[in-house]
Amino acid sequence: MVSFAIVGHLARSDGFFSLNDLPGSGGRMDVLCRCVNAALFLSHDLRRDADCYLILCGEEEAQKTIRFSGATVRSLSPDERSSAALIKKALGLPAGSEFRNAAAGVAVRKGGLDRLMKEHVFAVLDEKGSDIRSAERLPDSFILSDHLNFTDNEELQVSHSPRYSVGPVCLHADHTITVLHNELDRRKCGWM
Amino acid sequence: MVSFAIVGHLARSDGFFSLNDLPGSGGRMDVLCRCVNAALFLSHDLRRDADCYLILCGEEEAQKTIRFSGATVRSLSPDERSSAALIKKALGLPAGSEFRNAAAGVAVRKGGLDRLMKEHVFAVLDEKGSDIRSAERLPDSFILSDHLNFTDNEELQVSHSPRYSVGPVCLHADHTITVLHNELDRRKCGWM
Repeated sequence: MVSFAIVGHLARSDGFFSLNDLPGSGGRMDVLCRCVNAALFLSHDLRRDADCYLILCGEEEAQKTIRFSGATVRSLSPDERSSAALIKKALGLPAGSEFRNAAAGVAVRKGGLDRLMKEHVFAVLDEKGSDIRSAERLPDSFILSDHLNFTDNEELQVSHSPRYSVGPVCLHADHTITVLHNELDRRKCGWM
Repeated sequence: MVSFAIVGHLARSDGFFSLNDLPGSGGRMDVLCRCVNAALFLSHDLRRDADCYLILCGEEEAQKTIRFSGATVRSLSPDERSSAALIKKALGLPAGSEFRNAAAGVAVRKGGLDRLMKEHVFAVLDEKGSDIRSAERLPDSFILSDHLNFTDNEELQVSHSPRYSVGPVCLHADHTITVLHNELDRRKCGWM
């Protein structure tokens, strides 16, 4: 089981964004949609042992977290619009303090990073970390920032987390997830 | 300099697809758009030393090739819709036998794999190849198929090309490009 959490700093949590303009109207919702794709898709298959948490911070007083579960998700296609439509559907529900299913494998609740950090031991994926290929063992929960850096407050929250880097150049969050999955796949299959 | 070519078996070459339905109306144009993203984008930057060729085979008698050049492309955002809009614009031009610019860094011409194979020495990226990490040197031009396998005729055309695999599980074309870029980045920067 591997989990990814992505902090969407500007991502709208009220669902009022257009599927025709995910970057603008969604607060860079396109970044989060690509992360769902990278976390969950194999060729003609899904990674049934992966979860992807999207932390939508666009409205500070009304942050929400959406969970895509590879084990149970259905009706998800790889294109950005497909995951965006499921996000929009989840945000259309009244969110409570516990995860509530909006569609098979897609759930939503109130709250953001604070709470998720209490439930998972995340490692941070960023360019300042140690090389994933050099790690004797890799953790199974990772947190990443979207196109913006972690805020000072977020940095404080992850200050005790181990940090890993996937390579020498700074990549998009979804590309980082893809490279990390490849390293995990190799270790699982003895391709070192 | 690194080049990627992706064969879009069903991808419409006439430009008559909807930006609101890239998978359906575009003949899985979404797959090609994600390949453009994977080939050209870094975080807050572009890979100026990369090109991406899209071979649109949806209309067999009217195949076209679109070239995205990292060195000169402008007005390209990472979302699928952005590259799709540039593809649509390129397909709106009367295509000739030579590449013609439709926008900065985006050019189109008639023809498909036959001609491109005469101009580049491509290696094939697929799951049957040898591990990229084991290769002493990696080539600089790679060809991939979209969500469908190469046809028998295409297999014949690439039958003498070396084959490389990025890992033990079968990935989407764009994820494959991302993992390959990571290996090239590491070699370039001495992160082995």
